[in-house]
Amino acid sequence: MPSLDEFGRIRLWTAGRQTADFLTRSGVELGIGDDAAIVSGCGAEREWLVTADTMIEQVHFLDETMGEADVGFKALAANVSDIAAMGGEPKFALVSVCVPPAWDAQRMRRLYDGLYECAERYGVAVIGGDTTSAPQHLVVSVTLIGTVEAGRAIRRSGAKPGQSVFLTGPTGLSAAGLHALRRIAAAEGAERAALTDWLSPRLAQAHRRPVPSVKAGRILALTGWGASLNDVSDGVASEAWEIAEASGVRLLLKEKLLPLSGELSAYASGNGLDAADLALFGGEDYVLLGTVDKSREAQLRERFRPEGIPLFVIGEVEEGPPGVEWEAADTGLRKPLAKQGYNHFAEGAM
Amino acid sequence: MPSLDEFGRIRLWTAGRQTADFLTRSGVELGIGDDAAIVSGCGAEREWLVTADTMIEQVHFLDETMGEADVGFKALAANVSDIAAMGGEPKFALVSVCVPPAWDAQRMRRLYDGLYECAERYGVAVIGGDTTSAPQHLVVSVTLIGTVEAGRAIRRSGAKPGQSVFLTGPTGLSAAGLHALRRIAAAEGAERAALTDWLSPRLAQAHRRPVPSVKAGRILALTGWGASLNDVSDGVASEAWEIAEASGVRLLLKEKLLPLSGELSAYASGNGLDAADLALFGGEDYVLLGTVDKSREAQLRERFRPEGIPLFVIGEVEEGPPGVEWEAADTGLRKPLAKQGYNHFAEGAM
Repeated sequence: MPSLDEFGRIRLWTAGRQTADFLTRSGVELGIGDDAAIVSGCGAEREWLVTADTMIEQVHFLDETMGEADVGFKALAANVSDIAAMGGEPKFALVSVCVPPAWDAQRMRRLYDGLYECAERYGVAVIGGDTTSAPQHLVVSVTLIGTVEAGRAIRRSGAKPGQSVFLTGPTGLSAAGLHALRRIAAAEGAERAALTDWLSPRLAQAHRRPVPSVKAGRILALTGWGASLNDVSDGVASEAWEIAEASGVRLLLKEKLLPLSGELSAYASGNGLDAADLALFGGEDYVLLGTVDKSREAQLRERFRPEGIPLFVIGEVEEGPPGVEWEAADTGLRKPLAKQGYNHFAEGAM
Repeated sequence: MPSLDEFGRIRLWTAGRQTADFLTRSGVELGIGDDAAIVSGCGAEREWLVTADTMIEQVHFLDETMGEADVGFKALAANVSDIAAMGGEPKFALVSVCVPPAWDAQRMRRLYDGLYECAERYGVAVIGGDTTSAPQHLVVSVTLIGTVEAGRAIRRSGAKPGQSVFLTGPTGLSAAGLHALRRIAAAEGAERAALTDWLSPRLAQAHRRPVPSVKAGRILALTGWGASLNDVSDGVASEAWEIAEASGVRLLLKEKLLPLSGELSAYASGNGLDAADLALFGGEDYVLLGTVDKSREAQLRERFRPEGIPLFVIGEVEEGPPGVEWEAADTGLRKPLAKQGYNHFAEGAM
């Protein structure tokens, strides 16, 4: 796997981070340090889920908006969120980094601090990876393997007419946090200090330390009530479109049902932004968007409640050509919802 | 996993490349297109092997020395070689690419052509990945999952005093190929044409289309005769050091036993290079370096023969502080072998 002095670096970043006991209990028979890791089978009653997600400097994050530990945390969290969106449990991670000269040993150490913080929170064993130099921009590519009870994985293709569309939390907070952090980065002196004072910690945290919804995904899979499911990595509109197209149905989302957090509304109105736009098109909130039979809605809300997970019904599934429509709160009129995703730092994205 | 218009690109590069029948037989229940892929369990009698390897433009390859399809082929082949070095069978790949502006749809299509060519040759199902833009340099990060019979994986820590050290093929060809390709890239006009004419196809091929040793690894694992094993990704010296350190033994390698191919010797002598240096320190040959009990050497050679796999015994394992020694052919004197790896395009690497 890695080349000679890579091993020294990998050891520096990874040695002693996770106990032998934890790794053994996780099914790791051989971890970092050979050509490949060895993990024991999950048994016939479970299936494996596998996902990969890459973060690259200047595309997914900027030095000014994310600390090194945030980058490490979020690189793994994005993958945990994908496993959550299938109803699975995260298990094993491989971490590949391409390190440019500007990322010295101290910065990389902090990146791994954040990555292992996320690993510990979600019980993930880090079993391998690769490290190489990079000419200019840092790249962190994580592969995550999870498991789920056979036949229980929730696909995005399971939405059916008559079901309710739900969210497990408000959205748009990460996008608003990014907007605020970029404004701060662009400001100077007293203005910068004032903007920093004014920044809601919850918005900054939503962008830097997103919280994957593993528990909600597990409940949806184990009860069998989750008919279709996505994590909101690219924004509600984009994820709704994916479910609509994969399932061959139309999703109707209603403005009056869309949850808007107080922090989001305050930030939007103070900055001339539309809160609903942020909630619909802003990505990386890592709550879940899915569909559930109307007959299970109340039961699902009851199951979520003791875990502190909200259930916001935001619309319904209809027959029709695949697509997503948006019903305005004031007029009750419908219009197609743009199939627009989250564009990170694209021109004018926010 | 990927964001909105990423799906369009992924479809363009991956759709229709592998048949539904092949994917189903491979155990893929859900492939590219959801938050995570679903693969069925390998059963209690098998274990999983997981490895990741990244190739980055200007670090692992140059436009002048590798075609796009070569890059794709080699990105997967490097991972197949890691699974081979554990004695396993490659099964499922995830492919993450970070695409800079200079890599347009045509070039990426050719990259995937090469990647799928390698996948087909080794029976690998491509089940997912991630694609994102990159500011400047292409990054291809592949994760490969393989399986092996429980308890049969060959670790690098299994070398014991008294065993023979073997190679499953000559080395140094990829490094010589790279050297030649870089000379051609730096030359102009008639000199360039002459160098190109003179280039041995086998050397160029060794660098661009390395051949992982899956069959040899399987024989070593299934017979149980492979005591320790590495693929020669970073050069014989580097891999020997890894086995020595992981096993707590000394490896003695003998100049008179080191296989040197005719192409390598001819290229080295025609260019003022030392063939043995290339064979010891040049990487990416993807043959296997391992150790075997002396009592099994003849049997192993017999098992390899009908498969066309050579067995070169190049030294032996001794007690002693972990390290690697080199015995000169002319004097019979020993000296420590530098723990030097393959440095790709580092200053003075070749």
